[in-house]
Amino acid sequence: MGSLPSQTFSVEITDNHIHAGAVAVPGAQTSEWLLNSPNPPTFWEQIVGAINENAIPRSCIKNPNKKVSSLGSGKQSIFKTIVTLLQRVFPILKLARNYKASKFKNDLMAGLTLASLSIPQSIGYANLAKLDPQFGLYTSVVPPLIYAFMGSSREIAIGPVAVVSLLLSSMLQEIQDPVADPVAYRRLVFTVTLFAGIFQASFGLLRLGFLVDFLSHAAIVGFMAGAAILIGLQQMKGLLAISNFTTKTDVVSVLESVVKSVHQTWYPLNIVLGCSFLIFLLVARFIGRRNKKLFWVSAIAPLISVILSTLIVFVSRADKHGVKIVKEVKEGLNPISIHQLQLNSSTVGLAAKSGLIAAVIALTEAIAVGRSFASIKGYNIDGNKEMIAIGFMNIIGSLTSCYIATGSFSRTAVNYSAGCESVLSNIVMAITVMVTLQFFTRFLYFTPMAILASIILSALPGLVDINEAVHIWKVDKLDFLACLGAFLGVLFHSVEFGLLVAVGISFAKILLISIRPGAEEVGRLPRSDMFCNMKQFPMATKTQGFSIIRINSPLLCFANASFIRDRIMRLVEEDEDGDGIEEKTIKDHPKQLVVDMCNVMSIDTSGVIVLEELHKRLLLHGIQLSIASPKWEVIHKLKKTKFVEKIEGRVFISVGEAVDSCTGNASKFPSP
Amino acid sequence: MGSLPSQTFSVEITDNHIHAGAVAVPGAQTSEWLLNSPNPPTFWEQIVGAINENAIPRSCIKNPNKKVSSLGSGKQSIFKTIVTLLQRVFPILKLARNYKASKFKNDLMAGLTLASLSIPQSIGYANLAKLDPQFGLYTSVVPPLIYAFMGSSREIAIGPVAVVSLLLSSMLQEIQDPVADPVAYRRLVFTVTLFAGIFQASFGLLRLGFLVDFLSHAAIVGFMAGAAILIGLQQMKGLLAISNFTTKTDVVSVLESVVKSVHQTWYPLNIVLGCSFLIFLLVARFIGRRNKKLFWVSAIAPLISVILSTLIVFVSRADKHGVKIVKEVKEGLNPISIHQLQLNSSTVGLAAKSGLIAAVIALTEAIAVGRSFASIKGYNIDGNKEMIAIGFMNIIGSLTSCYIATGSFSRTAVNYSAGCESVLSNIVMAITVMVTLQFFTRFLYFTPMAILASIILSALPGLVDINEAVHIWKVDKLDFLACLGAFLGVLFHSVEFGLLVAVGISFAKILLISIRPGAEEVGRLPRSDMFCNMKQFPMATKTQGFSIIRINSPLLCFANASFIRDRIMRLVEEDEDGDGIEEKTIKDHPKQLVVDMCNVMSIDTSGVIVLEELHKRLLLHGIQLSIASPKWEVIHKLKKTKFVEKIEGRVFISVGEAVDSCTGNASKFPSP
Repeated sequence: MGSLPSQTFSVEITDNHIHAGAVAVPGAQTSEWLLNSPNPPTFWEQIVGAINENAIPRSCIKNPNKKVSSLGSGKQSIFKTIVTLLQRVFPILKLARNYKASKFKNDLMAGLTLASLSIPQSIGYANLAKLDPQFGLYTSVVPPLIYAFMGSSREIAIGPVAVVSLLLSSMLQEIQDPVADPVAYRRLVFTVTLFAGIFQASFGLLRLGFLVDFLSHAAIVGFMAGAAILIGLQQMKGLLAISNFTTKTDVVSVLESVVKSVHQTWYPLNIVLGCSFLIFLLVARFIGRRNKKLFWVSAIAPLISVILSTLIVFVSRADKHGVKIVKEVKEGLNPISIHQLQLNSSTVGLAAKSGLIAAVIALTEAIAVGRSFASIKGYNIDGNKEMIAIGFMNIIGSLTSCYIATGSFSRTAVNYSAGCESVLSNIVMAITVMVTLQFFTRFLYFTPMAILASIILSALPGLVDINEAVHIWKVDKLDFLACLGAFLGVLFHSVEFGLLVAVGISFAKILLISIRPGAEEVGRLPRSDMFCNMKQFPMATKTQGFSIIRINSPLLCFANASFIRDRIMRLVEEDEDGDGIEEKTIKDHPKQLVVDMCNVMSIDTSGVIVLEELHKRLLLHGIQLSIASPKWEVIHKLKKTKFVEKIEGRVFISVGEAVDSCTGNASKFPSP
Repeated sequence: MGSLPSQTFSVEITDNHIHAGAVAVPGAQTSEWLLNSPNPPTFWEQIVGAINENAIPRSCIKNPNKKVSSLGSGKQSIFKTIVTLLQRVFPILKLARNYKASKFKNDLMAGLTLASLSIPQSIGYANLAKLDPQFGLYTSVVPPLIYAFMGSSREIAIGPVAVVSLLLSSMLQEIQDPVADPVAYRRLVFTVTLFAGIFQASFGLLRLGFLVDFLSHAAIVGFMAGAAILIGLQQMKGLLAISNFTTKTDVVSVLESVVKSVHQTWYPLNIVLGCSFLIFLLVARFIGRRNKKLFWVSAIAPLISVILSTLIVFVSRADKHGVKIVKEVKEGLNPISIHQLQLNSSTVGLAAKSGLIAAVIALTEAIAVGRSFASIKGYNIDGNKEMIAIGFMNIIGSLTSCYIATGSFSRTAVNYSAGCESVLSNIVMAITVMVTLQFFTRFLYFTPMAILASIILSALPGLVDINEAVHIWKVDKLDFLACLGAFLGVLFHSVEFGLLVAVGISFAKILLISIRPGAEEVGRLPRSDMFCNMKQFPMATKTQGFSIIRINSPLLCFANASFIRDRIMRLVEEDEDGDGIEEKTIKDHPKQLVVDMCNVMSIDTSGVIVLEELHKRLLLHGIQLSIASPKWEVIHKLKKTKFVEKIEGRVFISVGEAVDSCTGNASKFPSP
């Protein structure tokens, strides 16, 4: 639009697409188009449409057309269809076609690096979940293998994670005491894992992936930070070797426990060992972060810590001086646990509830991890397919002595940095852990608990994203409130309560924004046909004889309609006052009120009633009401309620048309 | 816009307001205006603004300016200010200035007509509220007098109403049995009335009038219909003279009671008397409705029924044959009840809760009544002032043996039809009731209960608005669901539950609409610069080389952002497919995606993240993303999150500008 203003120019219209004659279509015609537009999809059509769109995978809809072109090839096409179907269920089959030896080398290295981090973390997380160490290792074997065949993320590292482990122990300790009856507790954990897997798979199968979106980004940031602090506090038990630790997870109970333990027997060796290795781990982490090439330092540090500390304890027999050690880790691969599931006990309802919460949290983490790394590498992840894969891996996991597994933030980053090429690095990792389980568990006997605690502690800073919290505060105060709510709820009440608070605040925010009543005066941008908020665009000018007011709420409904009506009346009255006092030169008060409804997505019966009231009241002031740019659904409702008939002929497709129509085009095309 | 398309025309631009050069302002400049627009009001500023706007009466803000001009007149101005203030608190003082004798004649007639309806209705409603008849009459004395001095509606008829009476008895019977201990029940009623008054007055003082709006029109229609049926069923007790009537109000319990009563002693005279007068009342009502001039037939019919039936019973001594009569109505004016309030008993919490619910229902009815008649006569009612008036009348009422009073639908209509000119008709009515209380209560001794039941029954059809329900069904299915929810909830559970259901459904609907993910393809309207939904405007055409997609949700937030992203990606892919297969002639696939954000009122951190993902993904497809017409708040957030920098220079004030900018204006001004 390089033409200069304030000069004569001429334009030849030769084509529909040429629109220098932007205002060349008669206003009456556009109003007619608007009023005669077909009915919008009904409520039922919208629901059916949404179900069709989301419940039926797009590939199924597309296939029929594609088949037409390949129908000729008979048997081969059936074979192809089967291959396509199998590939859809097991994405790993696609991999087989173009996998090269060079890629495998990368995957092997990444998988081994991953395993070196996975083994100590798994033992630590099992401890956090109040399970024996081998169950953490089991969970790093079966789920990654299942995921490798069904999942579509290439970087994700599957296994136990800190937040889900904490969540499990915090929820299940209240149902079953893990110290008093570890077998019953374990059975409960497997049952919850089964339920979580079933929920996750059904979310995917029913295409309910959007449920995971109900945890807003801000809520997740707050939740993760709160959980990280709780996890850190739980490590006090290992670091200080406290024996009577509280079973509650909130900050107050844990700190009370720690304070009380001061009066207990004190084992300084635990703290010395734990803290020195924590410093080592944090330094390694710092080096890995500063220099991307040295990331392996931070990746391998936990394994080195375990080996070193185990050797130290073994040589010095420090366990006899109060250093708590892992002791026996059961040898052998995952035992079958199908007979341990408790599906007809009285706790099955509670187990299902806990399973649902854990399922959502695990999915949220896995999908966030998967998506963020997929977007770095530039491919897509289908949330619903991922849910099916994660669901199945947990179902199979619950039958093979695993607890809930999901994608780990920290290990996925290591996997990515180690240069993994495909999901094969997970298989390499799982096999390494299997070998460890089979042959090396005895070497873990002397591993001190304090080291496991410091390994978990060193992974926590990744969960607390203070920068992001500051960013959220800067961008959106209400989002920050949801973040803070989740954080404080997790810290001071319970993990589930924190989630509830965050979801509650997030939805309250949506409600607040949707019904926030707004009306703003709009003016014409200089030398254009656009009407904009006069506060946002100070250069916009009023049109003589018009009040043009834009409703600024997405809904004109029972909750805000009378507010909006009052505000419009106030703006009109102010306008009358203003014109009368300040601009004495203008003789005619606004006799036209154009209500710009371009923002109103939906109107209900209360909203229409308020418009009718507004129309009546304005008539008393001698002001004509025009409606400009109503949305499809709104114009449909206005037609149905016969409001359009009441303001006959004063519904316009845009504010410009409304102004032009009322001024009778006089100012528009001055006689040349 | 009468210019013809497809012809050469020339325009001279001489003025800012002349806009045939609608597109004459350079696109770069408008983008700059958009990007450099001042910051929108912050969250706190919005809250403070809203409080200022609503909490401080506008007149207070305006006065300072006005005082300047009248400061010279010293003492007189202070006197004037006091008069103005007094007039604001007691609108009746304004009336005094220009009240004429002719007006008083009208008010007197209207007041007497009103009283003739009020006396039988008050006794009946007191019965519905499980109180002795005189309490209904008391409630028609003090509250109307207080309202007359403080209220601003001219037509409203104040007194006890059916719905609130039912609500009171349904809520309070569960706390205190009115049959076993009528004195304690009465004390509870006064306490609840006090609380209701306090709540109402504080809503008004704190300018929380909008709380009443949270009951949507649809919910009120359903609620009223359900309540009317319950009230009707309650009248079975009087009509059938059932002695062991249930204390519950839901349909099932009441019908059970009625069925059980079949086995009791049967008093046919009650039914004969009740039904014959019911028919008389309904015929009178019908006549009054058909012929507006004969409205007084329906207004006076209840009093005639009472007088006639009382005479019949008195003469025939039918009370000895099973006809239940009112028996003693205590003589004398309202006794003081201040010492009966129970503010330190254990039930005070329950009383406050019941008071809150009753306060909201009473306000809803009063304000709906006041507003609808004010709009007929063409004046305004300030909701907050009304609430203060109604609150005070109930507070004073609770101290003078009244229960909750509010504006009655049916009596207000009678008052209006009788030609009332001002609130004085209420005073006349109150004085008439006072006289009745003082001198004529003994004549009410033989009034049969069945007549009271039929008077209440005859007023019920006005509460059931089937046409409106049908209208709501036609206009909005979800609104109808709220209506139905309120109706069924009231009928089959309880009055409070019905309200809860209605409010719940109404807010769920707002949530649903706000997060409903939508994206639609838009095309250019022929010969214009407007871009519209291609399904709504089939004449709209696509622009070559562009996908133009409009986000159709008012919020781009955590709950719908990834849905919208997927839908946009799908539309882009479809477009690619479509172009590839159907329009082989067009060589270039869409290389430009313009996302029209004109509908998006608000974006949160999750929404911005999704936009960033979209940008990344589109780059992989080789498509450039442009953002068109972002709202003030949205552009502010996009600037803050640095998204604007990521798509440098591709944020436009409108879709037209975006298209023009990307096509380099080439097609815009073809070389002449």
